[in-house]
Amino acid sequence: MADSPNCDLKSLSPLQLFERVTEQGEKVRALKAGKAPKDEIDAAVRMLLSLKLSYKTTTGQDYQAGLPPKDLVLINNGTTKEEDEDLVDPWNVQTSNAKGVDYDKLIVRFGSSKIDTDLINRIERAIGQKPHHFLRRGIFFSHRDMDQVLDAYENKKPFYLYTGRGPSSQAMHVGHLIPFLFTKWLQEVFDVPLVIQLTDDEKYLWKDMTIEKAYEYAKENAKDIIACGFDINKTFIFSDLDYLGTSAGFYKNIVKVQKHVTFNQVKGIFGFTDSDCIGKISFPAIQAAPSFSSSFPQIFNGKENIQCLIPCAIDQDPYFRMTRDVAPRIGQPKPALLHSVFFPALQGAQTKMSASDPNSSIFLTDTPKQIKTKINKHAFSGGRDTIEEHRKYGGNCDVDVSFMYLTFFLEDDDRLEQLKQAYTSGELLTGELKKVLIETMQPLVAAHQERRKQVTDEIVKQFMTPRKLAFEF
Amino acid sequence: MADSPNCDLKSLSPLQLFERVTEQGEKVRALKAGKAPKDEIDAAVRMLLSLKLSYKTTTGQDYQAGLPPKDLVLINNGTTKEEDEDLVDPWNVQTSNAKGVDYDKLIVRFGSSKIDTDLINRIERAIGQKPHHFLRRGIFFSHRDMDQVLDAYENKKPFYLYTGRGPSSQAMHVGHLIPFLFTKWLQEVFDVPLVIQLTDDEKYLWKDMTIEKAYEYAKENAKDIIACGFDINKTFIFSDLDYLGTSAGFYKNIVKVQKHVTFNQVKGIFGFTDSDCIGKISFPAIQAAPSFSSSFPQIFNGKENIQCLIPCAIDQDPYFRMTRDVAPRIGQPKPALLHSVFFPALQGAQTKMSASDPNSSIFLTDTPKQIKTKINKHAFSGGRDTIEEHRKYGGNCDVDVSFMYLTFFLEDDDRLEQLKQAYTSGELLTGELKKVLIETMQPLVAAHQERRKQVTDEIVKQFMTPRKLAFEF
Repeated sequence: MADSPNCDLKSLSPLQLFERVTEQGEKVRALKAGKAPKDEIDAAVRMLLSLKLSYKTTTGQDYQAGLPPKDLVLINNGTTKEEDEDLVDPWNVQTSNAKGVDYDKLIVRFGSSKIDTDLINRIERAIGQKPHHFLRRGIFFSHRDMDQVLDAYENKKPFYLYTGRGPSSQAMHVGHLIPFLFTKWLQEVFDVPLVIQLTDDEKYLWKDMTIEKAYEYAKENAKDIIACGFDINKTFIFSDLDYLGTSAGFYKNIVKVQKHVTFNQVKGIFGFTDSDCIGKISFPAIQAAPSFSSSFPQIFNGKENIQCLIPCAIDQDPYFRMTRDVAPRIGQPKPALLHSVFFPALQGAQTKMSASDPNSSIFLTDTPKQIKTKINKHAFSGGRDTIEEHRKYGGNCDVDVSFMYLTFFLEDDDRLEQLKQAYTSGELLTGELKKVLIETMQPLVAAHQERRKQVTDEIVKQFMTPRKLAFEF
Repeated sequence: MADSPNCDLKSLSPLQLFERVTEQGEKVRALKAGKAPKDEIDAAVRMLLSLKLSYKTTTGQDYQAGLPPKDLVLINNGTTKEEDEDLVDPWNVQTSNAKGVDYDKLIVRFGSSKIDTDLINRIERAIGQKPHHFLRRGIFFSHRDMDQVLDAYENKKPFYLYTGRGPSSQAMHVGHLIPFLFTKWLQEVFDVPLVIQLTDDEKYLWKDMTIEKAYEYAKENAKDIIACGFDINKTFIFSDLDYLGTSAGFYKNIVKVQKHVTFNQVKGIFGFTDSDCIGKISFPAIQAAPSFSSSFPQIFNGKENIQCLIPCAIDQDPYFRMTRDVAPRIGQPKPALLHSVFFPALQGAQTKMSASDPNSSIFLTDTPKQIKTKINKHAFSGGRDTIEEHRKYGGNCDVDVSFMYLTFFLEDDDRLEQLKQAYTSGELLTGELKKVLIETMQPLVAAHQERRKQVTDEIVKQFMTPRKLAFEF
């Protein structure tokens, strides 16, 4: 009881304050349960009230037990997820709904903002061209601080893009390309530097895999990423295992983040337990650090405070909620984010895809024949049981995986709308819709394979060499 | 209950096995308390017995609740330290005994081995010269696997030395030199490479200090270390903040260690709590990694498995107990250790010295006058209250700090013995003993200062540049 409740509370993050209030609440309960002397209980209650006041001043919200501050909603620890809610974190995506995860609910739970028509229109005005169909079709559906990025862009202030991949296997599927295809478009329309992190250290820590294997996958995956068509003069791809040993700036930011995040916090955010290895526990700092430009002195000429924008699937958000919580305390700007929905498995939108199940998606190594067979055999259909019923009642695009895939990969808006009308009305049969998907995916994958063949080890090496990019800072 | 008790138990370390037995014991108790069905309790008991058998097979010891395996005794978590025991860990040294910590008890608690006459004689035979007075006088008093190092040496197999320092301030005192003076002697007699780690990242994580300040202290401290006379062609000094960003081998070993140590383990070994930052929690791996030669590919030509010998104060042992537990599981040899006693504060041997209290020791920056004043004013005396009593009963060398300091710094064995006799018999007064110490320390510190002046920033830079040393591997 010697501590004044207000001492150094100002330096605490909303989440830390939340934890202090929770702890103090438990203390009060324990004192009452233990029938402690009245003055001791009174003092503890006074401190609790004072902590709650600090919490409200800092967050603008009343303290609610079990409901952490908006920017840092806890997930995966069983305490805040309701029974019927979807489970979404970097290692799990589960929903019982055939349409997939309820993204509107996720926005509320994660405390992010919806990408609405106003924002899409503002992007269109800023770049002077039609926004990518991933934006128009709600595939990138949520954001944090995208307005600030646009403010900066309109004021000719620089920013950069950061995205990444965990190289868990050699095989990438078409869903893995979504963030990269979108990032490539962002890079082109905004003309900004891009850094791509390959978290081979993460895969080594989480999987039964040697360091050498994880690094090998990183380099193999880099080929598929490069084959998306990134500009070598504007893009730096790095493996953690590699780059950590070549950049003092990167490690310094990692250790700064590590100083400002407690085990309690990563336990709350990622659900780690006491039995987890210390590598997992400290890893979030390694995914956080590329959000700060000083991690790349060779690109930004040692400049700190260059705004970062991260396009990623929504399951990666916990890392960046943590990063945004730490950023102001280490004197860095919070990274902005653009979140995508999950790419559905061929079997249906209830689960995120698994690279370990070859039938769960179309892989970048699939032959035209494999693509045809997989779609015909495995793509979950929203059609009716019989042709007669289908003609009469029509198919359901909301659960039909072939239609979902076309939403991702068929760029022609009019054609997509026609297909939707025809399928819904019953005019178009499942087999016919699948045929359209097959004809869309076969040339797309073949073209990717053709470009990937051009990506030599030497080109990978160049992309992965720390160097200045075609921008002045 | 689906797991077979023996599945993958072989891959567990003694400490992990210990934890499994403890957990299973708790489970059995919980089942019994909850009046679970008999067959369920029986199954849990069978698994407990099977786990205990595995524990005995692996460790050669019977499982005892609360008493972890010998090589990994838990300290600082309140569960194994007895009331009257000394507290010794990397951040605390406490004893209630004026003679200082009870080192014989510490050897038993830590599970290390005493450096006995046999070992000292063996070292003398191996190097063909008289062992250092730190060995002869029990200042380095404990070891792990020093016999193996001598085996290797006698078989012309290479090994290397690793020691370090946490640069918490610019000011180093004479006690800080002990491991370095001894390491220098070891390097000379065995003619082996030496790596010296400056844990500036640790100081940043533990103290209220910027990264820049910690790195600055590291470079300043390097000057004092270099002034001990290390051979630039055989010695590599590195700051973590610096070297981590220049060596892929170092980070790879860090992440390997981090994969094989759980939060439960570091909690047990170092007393970390859920409120500690993730940087502290994962730091032990950074102090562990230099124990493996692959952390220094530039020195060892990429060779792994070169035996490491670590001279250090005994308070650093927890880091290396952990390292030795992990080593076989990542295919590396366990580092051997030589442990020193603590250097006493001028005020008495009850506490380890503090670099933040200028009167607690003789600093390397002290003038001859300051040395004289400090010793006369602060050095705890084992003499009697009056000259008459002193003449009659004699002084007590066991608690007299001036005599202790002379044990460290007066190399002449005969002279030291004479002083001891004379002081114990009452012939020599406290003031006279202090005079001997003053006359020993003044030229020693002055000579250090003279050598330190020669250490330019350029020389520091050379020592701290990753490079090949004068050894072929």
